Amino acid sequence: MEAEITLVKVGGKVLENAADAALFLNDFAALPGKKMLVHGGGVLADAMANRLNVPQTMVEGRRITDAETLEIVTMVYGGLINRRVVAQLQALNVNALGISGADAGVMLAHKRQNLPLDYGFVGDVDEVNAPQLQQWMNTGLVPVLCPLTHDGKGQLLNTNADTMARQAASALAQNSTVKLIFCFDLEGVKDAAGHVIPQMRRNDFEKLKAEGVVQGGMIPKLENGFMAIEAGVQEVYIGSFEALTQLREVGCWTRLEGGAIFKA
Amino acid sequence: MEAEITLVKVGGKVLENAADAALFLNDFAALPGKKMLVHGGGVLADAMANRLNVPQTMVEGRRITDAETLEIVTMVYGGLINRRVVAQLQALNVNALGISGADAGVMLAHKRQNLPLDYGFVGDVDEVNAPQLQQWMNTGLVPVLCPLTHDGKGQLLNTNADTMARQAASALAQNSTVKLIFCFDLEGVKDAAGHVIPQMRRNDFEKLKAEGVVQGGMIPKLENGFMAIEAGVQEVYIGSFEALTQLREVGCWTRLEGGAIFKA
Repeated sequence: MEAEITLVKVGGKVLENAADAALFLNDFAALPGKKMLVHGGGVLADAMANRLNVPQTMVEGRRITDAETLEIVTMVYGGLINRRVVAQLQALNVNALGISGADAGVMLAHKRQNLPLDYGFVGDVDEVNAPQLQQWMNTGLVPVLCPLTHDGKGQLLNTNADTMARQAASALAQNSTVKLIFCFDLEGVKDAAGHVIPQMRRNDFEKLKAEGVVQGGMIPKLENGFMAIEAGVQEVYIGSFEALTQLREVGCWTRLEGGAIFKA
Repeated sequence: MEAEITLVKVGGKVLENAADAALFLNDFAALPGKKMLVHGGGVLADAMANRLNVPQTMVEGRRITDAETLEIVTMVYGGLINRRVVAQLQALNVNALGISGADAGVMLAHKRQNLPLDYGFVGDVDEVNAPQLQQWMNTGLVPVLCPLTHDGKGQLLNTNADTMARQAASALAQNSTVKLIFCFDLEGVKDAAGHVIPQMRRNDFEKLKAEGVVQGGMIPKLENGFMAIEAGVQEVYIGSFEALTQLREVGCWTRLEGGAIFKA
């Protein structure tokens, strides 16, 4: 096993707000050791689509990506957000390298086939080039991955950032111990009483989902988190970007746990 | 001296047209050995500025870059064009890595001070991280550089692509033999009779400039070309993207020559 890698996924909503972005990037810069960032950007993509009069359709939280929308997400995720984050991290002495899944063939995907619903230019990842990511991190680079992949035939594909983070973490976990952190503008996964749940196993998740306590965008995030655990990622956290460097602070983070179902 | 590097600069006009882009990228993919691409994108930036109703001002071919224009060029150069080119090159088995000058700190610049004319967020390059570019090329990666740099303090800067190509070539030439090729949609530098000049020295350039035969955008391109020669770049060519792999074909390329002024 190589040394520990921390892989952070941050939502576009955090990066859209300059003060939040500065706070988050400062904390990310302070994380020790090898690390990597995966970012979203849906909020800014919506704003740009609106300015360009390109109507957007979401189905179960996923963006139907026609040719014009692909152009927008390529500009916003791959350009505006990714290049800015890299420049900001460089100013914090983080040797950031901004990439899409096409760069150095880091993430190969195929266009989603989900007829009769056509998601358009949306990709599902088939392969992660973990040795390349590892090699960059070994030389002190910090990959900053935007939510775009390619099909190897010249086509860029819009791809879910949580899924990309999970798949990168899972691939890296084959040769390194990996900590995967999903950061957003909420405090973690909450129970019915509104308290952040400090630890969860998959059976807790299934129960809370059945009860409707966990819902919406939290479901795919937790699904990705548990899939990462099951693929060998050692630690997975979900919580607030405001406490990234204090992961264990009670009330801000939910840690996902693997292993056998356990009832006290 | 390490092995030869071919550094190609291609204009945005070539990449904007799908058929031209395909032809050019095929030829670029066919170039043997270590290589690197620098691209422009002014035409697509103009189109996007127009769609977003952001008026553009050009002074001597340079774009006055206010905050909104910087956002546009970051999206268009750093996102739309760069990510697309990378995906297309990957499909041609070129292991492309799309970067701005901020990525891995490849090009550090400062905001141009040119009062009373304020160019806005426009950068002049101070340092090129040639060892990083070289290291990537040593591992089989092909850097694809968009015309953005950073100031090391978190600010992206719009930067002239010809100048970036010249500066990258000059820095790489300290440890490698470098061939620098400026590709565009014209055939080369033409004389008063409209024939492409096969070889030029700086004194030829100064003479043709004084006579008004060479003018407009060709002047900074030639200036960059001769500066590259004077900085130790071994070969510099200016000409048509349609004949990239047949550099020596008469009538398509102008080769810039260094050395003493020579009159036959």
